[in-house]
Order: sequence, then C-alpha cells, then structure tokens
Amino acid sequence: MASTRDDSSRNGVDVAALSATADAVRGNPAAAAFQFRAHNEWISGTHNRGTIHDYSGGGEERTHERTFQFDADHPAVLAGRDNGPTGPELVLHALASCLTAGLATAAAARGIRLTEVRSTVTGDLDLNGVLGLDPAVRNGFGQITVRFTVTGDAPADQLRDLVEHSRARSAVLDVLTNVVPVTIEVATV
Amino acid sequence: MASTRDDSSRNGVDVAALSATADAVRGNPAAAAFQFRAHNEWISGTHNRGTIHDYSGGGEERTHERTFQFDADHPAVLAGRDNGPTGPELVLHALASCLTAGLATAAAARGIRLTEVRSTVTGDLDLNGVLGLDPAVRNGFGQITVRFTVTGDAPADQLRDLVEHSRARSAVLDVLTNVVPVTIEVATV
Repeated sequence: MASTRDDSSRNGVDVAALSATADAVRGNPAAAAFQFRAHNEWISGTHNRGTIHDYSGGGEERTHERTFQFDADHPAVLAGRDNGPTGPELVLHALASCLTAGLATAAAARGIRLTEVRSTVTGDLDLNGVLGLDPAVRNGFGQITVRFTVTGDAPADQLRDLVEHSRARSAVLDVLTNVVPVTIEVATV
Repeated sequence: MASTRDDSSRNGVDVAALSATADAVRGNPAAAAFQFRAHNEWISGTHNRGTIHDYSGGGEERTHERTFQFDADHPAVLAGRDNGPTGPELVLHALASCLTAGLATAAAARGIRLTEVRSTVTGDLDLNGVLGLDPAVRNGFGQITVRFTVTGDAPADQLRDLVEHSRARSAVLDVLTNVVPVTIEVATV
C-alpha cells in the first residue's frame, strides 16, 4: 500500500525514518527516553540568548546538525529593548510549530498531499498578574487560540481530521493543557 | 532611594518604563489586557517557519521593532531534516528566557548588580507517548528541570531570592505548571 503512494503525498516527511524510530522504541524503554535541552545566557536587562544544540534519545547523546541560537527580550513597554520576542510569544511559536509538524506527519501517513498550512496562535494575558498587581490574576495566558488554514488533496473533513490527529499527539499542546512538574535549582558562585 | 542607585545596578533594565506601565495598568483593565501572537507557515515535512511581529497591549495595536522569524523542524530520528529546533525544545528556551528576564528585573528593582546569569533547562520525554505507542504515556515532558548559575554583588541568599521572585512571577512557568484552555479552529479553503 505504502509503495503505491508517490513522493508528493509524503509532504517531505521521512516516513521510513519515523517507522524505524517507532520500531526501535517498541518494548525498549531506554530507546524511548528523550531529553531535550535549552541553554541560556543573560546579556543585559531583559535581553538573553538561548542555545539549542545537544539532546539525548534512543540511548545515546545526540546533537542537532547546527547550533540554533535565539535572542529573547521584552519590548520597551515591558522594560526591555526589543532584541527578540518574549518568552510567552516563544511558547505560542512552539505550539504552532509542534501542531504543524504533527499535521504534516499525519498527512504523510495517510497519503494526503498538502498544499498549504498556515496558522496564527494568539494568547491573552492580563498584566495585573505578571506585574504582581493582583494576586487573583494568573501570570500566564488565560486563553490560547489556534487558527489553522489547511489546503490539500482531500475533502475538508479529512483535512480537519489531520488537525485533530495532531492535537491528540502534540507534545507542546500537552504541556500547556496539563500540568508539568518543574524543578528549579540555583548555584551562586 | 531609587536615585541613589548607580546605573550598573539596573542591569540594563528600564525600571522607569516598567513603573510607567504598572501605573497605566493599575485600575484600568483595558490597559492590562495584552494579546501576544505567533504566525506559522508550513514549508515541507516537519519544517515550518514562525513569525512574531504584531501584538496588542495597553489598549492599542503594537509591533515589535523588528520582525522575528524562526524555523522549526524535527531531527532525522523524528522524521525531519533538522532545519530548526523542535517545538518542545522551543518551550524550554521560552522558559529559560522568561525566568532570566524576570530575575534581571527583580535584581534591578532591588539594586543588585548582576555579573552572570546562566541556565540549562532539561525536559524529559518518553517517545511512547508522542508516537502513540502507549496511551498511558503523556505526549509532552514528564519533568522539566532548570539549573541556574547566578553571580552578582549580593550574598548568595539574596541571589537565590531573585530566582524565587522570578519563579513566582513567570508567565511561562505558569502555563507549564497550570492548565491553559486552548481552542483550535480549522478553515479548509
């Protein structure tokens, strides 16, 4: 069945690689354990720089093919110099990227050729929380909304179902809609 | 009191701007309402590109001084071509950047001159979840750990207290350690 699909229906997804990873993971907890990492260095004010390069998975230490560096900052209205997006904006970007990758992977698995996938993610935040002005207001987003536009060679209900599959499998959606234990350690040298 | 602190104790934080924003927000719900946004375009496979530029806040539409664009992708082991970090890695970067900005802001408010702030954030993930191999395993991180190294002109307990303040006010930490309602809408054209 799979061999009858032409390459365009793969949407650029390496389905064979994903199958190989799934085969390695099945029944092998050590292969399934991944650890992702981000390193950060403060520059000045609210401006800091993140580096993403090393991770582990499948029982071995790994590195990305390149070192990814991203500046983050606050805009002037939030005491910064606007050298990069804020952390909350990066969360919205992370959510869009995770859902989009999952959608394309699901389409490849189903032999649906995509032609366009666009999305806008909005997050509503009340500054009374993050500024510490009202203890009843949370620091983070009170609501996040994702709006997708999807086109491809399939009926609308099948395209919508790709988004549904992506929602069900998204690692970033999970950490936003469920609680994650976060431990913070500090060394002062 | 504030005027006796030299500029270096501000750590590059525009404390006056932050005070002005807090004054505008107090007792004015419209001024406190911010909406952050990320736009995303699928490129190929798991590769997609995020754009962060427009947002609203303080009762008006705003834009960052520049347009920030970031590619995201999966590594080969997860069916991608490694053109950028994964969504989960971007979440870790967002958390580090948010906590670091908050730490620097707290130091500025307290007149503590920072000399170095570094952090590594790790997130542990079991692929059985995200690959759909075991319904009992969550898709996202089961544990996130942040390790800070902080140096500056203050005793260790005061430097640790800066991290504690940042933890208490972080918008990104909030969305990871508490539940956010996420709505997903789809248009097929």
